[in-house]
Amino acid sequence: MAGANFSDACIALLHRLAERSGEIALQHFRTSVTVDAKGDDSPVTIADRDAESAMREMIRAAFPDHGLIGEEHGRERPDAEWLWILDPIDGTRSFINGVPLFGTLIALWQRTGDGEARPVLGCINHPALKERWVGGNNHPTTFNGVRTEPRACAAAADASMYYTAADLFAPSEAEAFNAVTKAAGQARAGGTDCYHYAMVASGWIDLVVESGLKLHDYAAIVPVLEGAGAVVSDWNGAPLALDSETTVNGQVLACGDPRLHTEVVNLLQSR
Amino acid sequence: MAGANFSDACIALLHRLAERSGEIALQHFRTSVTVDAKGDDSPVTIADRDAESAMREMIRAAFPDHGLIGEEHGRERPDAEWLWILDPIDGTRSFINGVPLFGTLIALWQRTGDGEARPVLGCINHPALKERWVGGNNHPTTFNGVRTEPRACAAAADASMYYTAADLFAPSEAEAFNAVTKAAGQARAGGTDCYHYAMVASGWIDLVVESGLKLHDYAAIVPVLEGAGAVVSDWNGAPLALDSETTVNGQVLACGDPRLHTEVVNLLQSR
Repeated sequence: MAGANFSDACIALLHRLAERSGEIALQHFRTSVTVDAKGDDSPVTIADRDAESAMREMIRAAFPDHGLIGEEHGRERPDAEWLWILDPIDGTRSFINGVPLFGTLIALWQRTGDGEARPVLGCINHPALKERWVGGNNHPTTFNGVRTEPRACAAAADASMYYTAADLFAPSEAEAFNAVTKAAGQARAGGTDCYHYAMVASGWIDLVVESGLKLHDYAAIVPVLEGAGAVVSDWNGAPLALDSETTVNGQVLACGDPRLHTEVVNLLQSR
Repeated sequence: MAGANFSDACIALLHRLAERSGEIALQHFRTSVTVDAKGDDSPVTIADRDAESAMREMIRAAFPDHGLIGEEHGRERPDAEWLWILDPIDGTRSFINGVPLFGTLIALWQRTGDGEARPVLGCINHPALKERWVGGNNHPTTFNGVRTEPRACAAAADASMYYTAADLFAPSEAEAFNAVTKAAGQARAGGTDCYHYAMVASGWIDLVVESGLKLHDYAAIVPVLEGAGAVVSDWNGAPLALDSETTVNGQVLACGDPRLHTEVVNLLQSR
C-alpha cells in the first residue's frame, strides 16, 4: 500500500464500515421487512440498500477519489486506482428467514496499471454472530482481532467441504462439481454463503467449491483467505480477477491447504 | 403437571440442564475433537457424550424416580411416569465444522397410562448463539425469556419452508416431499437441524417438513412449538408419539399457522 498511514486509515475505515453496516442490518433482522426481487430474481430488502448507502457515504467522505462498486447501488469512479467493493448483505435468504449466518463483505482492491486490479484488504463481518474476519496483503487475517489460520489437510479424502446449495451450479458444471463432492471426505450444502469461506480461513473446514459468484461476492473473501494463508482461485487455479464473474462464470475454489488445492484443481479440470 | 411446585422445579432444572450442557459443548466447539461414527454412521464426539452424562446426573439427583432416554447413553427406567428425553448435540455436522447452529434438545414427557406419553415441557438451546426456547403445556413458549409466537401464513404459496438436506428423505418419500417444496413460496435446505423448528415457533419462517427423526430429535420440539401456538404432527396430521420414530419413520411436519398445516397434510397425503 501507499505508506503505513494510508494503510492504517484504510483498516480503520474497514472496521467503521463493518460496525455501521452491521447496526443497520440488525435494525431490520427478524422484523417483517418487505422483500423485493431484483432483475436476477435474488431477494433484496431495505437493509441491503441502506447498509450500502451508509458505507458509500463514509468512503466518499474519507477518500473522495476512490472508486465504489456495490451490489445494490452500482459503480462510481470504477477507473480509480483504489476500488472499494461492497456486498451489504451476503446471504439475503438467511437474513430474511432469521438465520444469523448472513454477512457483510467489504473489500479494497488496487489497480495494477494494466486494466487489472488485485485485492489488498477484505472484511467478512457477521453482525448477528458478532464475528469478524479482516485480512489481506501484508495484513495477516484476524478473527475478532486474533490471528487465525487454516488447518492442514493434504488430501480431498480427508477434507470437510461446504457449499451453499447444489442448485446454484449450472448443468454444465455438475460433472466437475460432483467429482469433488464424491472425492471429499464429507460435503455439505450448508446454506452458509460467505460464512464457509471464513470457516476455511479459520481451519474449521478445508474446502469450498462454488459457482456463479459476482465480483462483490468474492472481492472480500480473496484477501481474507490469502491473508490467513489459504489458497483461493477460479476452477482453473488462476487468480480471481475483476472480470472473473464473466470470464469464468464466477467459479470459486477455496482450500485451507495448498496440497488440497492442487488435487481439487486437477479433479475439476479432468472433467 | 402434578402441582405448581413440581412444575417450577422442572422448569428450573430445564434451564440448569441447558446451561451445563451448553458449557460442555462450547468447551469442545472449534477445537480438534475426535469424530467417531456411530452404528448408523452419524458422527459423535466427546462433547455429545459428556454433555448427556452431565444432564443425566443432574436429573437423577433431582428426580431419582424419573426415566431417562438419551441419544448417546440409552434408556434408564423407561417405564417411569415422567420421562426426560435428551439430545445433547443436535446438528453434530454443524458442531464439528464450526457452524454455531447446533442445539441441545431437552424434553419432559408424562405417561398417560395407556402405554403412551405426551410432551409436557421442552427446551431448544443453542449455546453458541446464546439463544434458548422453552415452552410446553400451560407454559407459553419463550425465546430468551420473552414470549414468542409464530406468524400468520394461511397458504403454502406464501410460506417460507426449511429442511436440513434433501438426501435425508427415503426414496419412497420423495414425491410427497417434492409436492410440498413445489407448492411452497420458497424452500431451502439450510443445514439447520433443530434450529428451523425454533424459527417456526418465533415466526421467522412458516413450514418445516422432515423425515427420519428419532424420538430424541422431536421430543423437545413438540412442546416448544405447541407452547408457541404452532402446529406439529406427523405427515398424516397425527400427534408425534413415543413410537413415531418407528411407526411413521420419524416424519415431522411443523407449521406456524393451522391453516397451512391443513393444506400441507393434504398435499402430503395425496401422494
